[in-house]
Amino acid sequence: MENKQKQTPLSELGEFGLIERLTEKIQLKNTSTLKGVGDDAAVLNYPDKKIVVTTDLLTEGIHFNLMYVPLKHLGYKAVVVNLSDVFAMNATPKQITVSIAISSKFSLEAVEELYSGIHLACEKYGVDLIGGDTTSSLTGLTISVTAIGEATDEELAYRSGAQVNDLLCVSGDLGGAYMGLQLLERENEVFKVNPNQQPQFDRYDYILGRQLKPEARGDIKELLKTLNIKPTSMIDISDGLSSEALHLCKASKVGCSIYEEKVPLDSQTKAFAEELSINPLVAALNGGEDYELLFTVPLASFDVLKKEFDITIIGHITAESEGANLITTGGSVIPLQAQGWNPLMNKAKA
Amino acid sequence: MENKQKQTPLSELGEFGLIERLTEKIQLKNTSTLKGVGDDAAVLNYPDKKIVVTTDLLTEGIHFNLMYVPLKHLGYKAVVVNLSDVFAMNATPKQITVSIAISSKFSLEAVEELYSGIHLACEKYGVDLIGGDTTSSLTGLTISVTAIGEATDEELAYRSGAQVNDLLCVSGDLGGAYMGLQLLERENEVFKVNPNQQPQFDRYDYILGRQLKPEARGDIKELLKTLNIKPTSMIDISDGLSSEALHLCKASKVGCSIYEEKVPLDSQTKAFAEELSINPLVAALNGGEDYELLFTVPLASFDVLKKEFDITIIGHITAESEGANLITTGGSVIPLQAQGWNPLMNKAKA
Repeated sequence: MENKQKQTPLSELGEFGLIERLTEKIQLKNTSTLKGVGDDAAVLNYPDKKIVVTTDLLTEGIHFNLMYVPLKHLGYKAVVVNLSDVFAMNATPKQITVSIAISSKFSLEAVEELYSGIHLACEKYGVDLIGGDTTSSLTGLTISVTAIGEATDEELAYRSGAQVNDLLCVSGDLGGAYMGLQLLERENEVFKVNPNQQPQFDRYDYILGRQLKPEARGDIKELLKTLNIKPTSMIDISDGLSSEALHLCKASKVGCSIYEEKVPLDSQTKAFAEELSINPLVAALNGGEDYELLFTVPLASFDVLKKEFDITIIGHITAESEGANLITTGGSVIPLQAQGWNPLMNKAKA
Repeated sequence: MENKQKQTPLSELGEFGLIERLTEKIQLKNTSTLKGVGDDAAVLNYPDKKIVVTTDLLTEGIHFNLMYVPLKHLGYKAVVVNLSDVFAMNATPKQITVSIAISSKFSLEAVEELYSGIHLACEKYGVDLIGGDTTSSLTGLTISVTAIGEATDEELAYRSGAQVNDLLCVSGDLGGAYMGLQLLERENEVFKVNPNQQPQFDRYDYILGRQLKPEARGDIKELLKTLNIKPTSMIDISDGLSSEALHLCKASKVGCSIYEEKVPLDSQTKAFAEELSINPLVAALNGGEDYELLFTVPLASFDVLKKEFDITIIGHITAESEGANLITTGGSVIPLQAQGWNPLMNKAKA
């Protein structure tokens, strides 16, 4: 007699499919819950302030490989990726909680090294470590960080506010973190073959730093405020430009055109991509982990923004019916595809 | 040449020792951070409301054993243990975030089963699930829950407010969850020897429920309000009465006397303890996972509280110099010892 229920492998759904399944029945009940699942952070509603809350879980072998990531860098990065989600709401992070599960292979000194990175990030971004949990795991290291931030109602930028004709902008440059990961992986392979050979990192310090010690763009909120520009929508680029642009378009019920020649790429990103015979644009579109901000502003901001060295106007918002497209240098129109990283498939990041 | 740094095993410090080491350097910087590490929850300060934040990380093989815990119960319990920390601040939980890391052995149906327990707990306690993260792990299941609650300044009860001569009170009864775990472990051993033998749970449904489906005491805040009693201090009993009473005394810089014959024990707790030739008082003092509230109230509340069926006055607060003691039925004075569970030693709970 066969009456077992059908079992669906998680890899069939992917992360976003799974989240959709698990959250579709949620009905918000409390008046202090302004926004639940579906943006970079949830938003809580208090008369004098809006509070944003976001959380990430990082596991060894999936999100990081201790073979080539120093524990201090890992602690720093674990905090920064959460702060990036707060900044992506155009809010200011104020507190974090950090929980870790560690196997008995870790010593006190190793845990202190991890926390030195956590404390360093708190120091740099002015946030308070207010709590957490410390426990053991049978294998490996798991880090869970929750970040809490503040914003006024007027400051908050959701994914859903983009309007047709808005300019689509990005901070910094893209694809560097992905190329840094490729570099680490190459040197790790070389090391396995010949442990005495020194890694070749000198020419690629920038992309290595993008991967190992990313920074969150806490300066953009202030910059836009100074320029008197209010972003209409905002998201952080953790999974690659394609995936994030699609999220933003879906939430705002719009389309977009992104111009290939406008996508900002650093010279090291281009140089190492060339060395590996990769198109650096692919690293920008699908690589992820850049933690830059993708945002939209009214068309009228063009003259002010084009003078800003660290912000690039990469395209504009179109009608939903036109879809989300990449316009190549040759003029071809290619629909963007979310080839972002699927954390439910086992491929370790650095 | 030997110049390696000394490596200290984590088991040497235990959880509280490790937390102390990792948090001793923290200096709070933000005006919205009222209370950081060191109570059941952190407290954020806003003009109109105080916000409490607490988080827990549960790992397979350490905090739960999927051999005898249904996934739905696990999801329910993961939420409840966090809500219990919010209630222990005399606050009301409003939102939670839930992050999970799962290995590929889990199917969609298994994850949905886990979430059905999470949703059930949200429903029962009126909290909103507002976010989280869903990712994979190389082995096993990890669940991280963060709970956010609200209270007015007057309502908040810290661990540090107990005053000499205050009454020491506990909700419900103690030791049941620990005896439930003993029952599950016994039946698991029987099952290993003879898989056809049915487990013997009928007479022990209460203690089994205490272990598998604990409830958080969301009713105590309301009850005390109705009775017009403001608790001077409060903590939830997750690690056993001894450990929690010591935390409370340390934070309040007081001592306490707990009377053996006053410690509330359920009849099933006593019966199964007798069956195993265990003193049920030991389960209450050191067992943990009861998620009842331990709190202090002014002596003047005695007449009102003694009539409350579900609250037991188990002792009183003394001067710090007198220490924290158990007064046995025979009149002996025995110093309380924190023999609570050390999650950095690998002993799996249910």
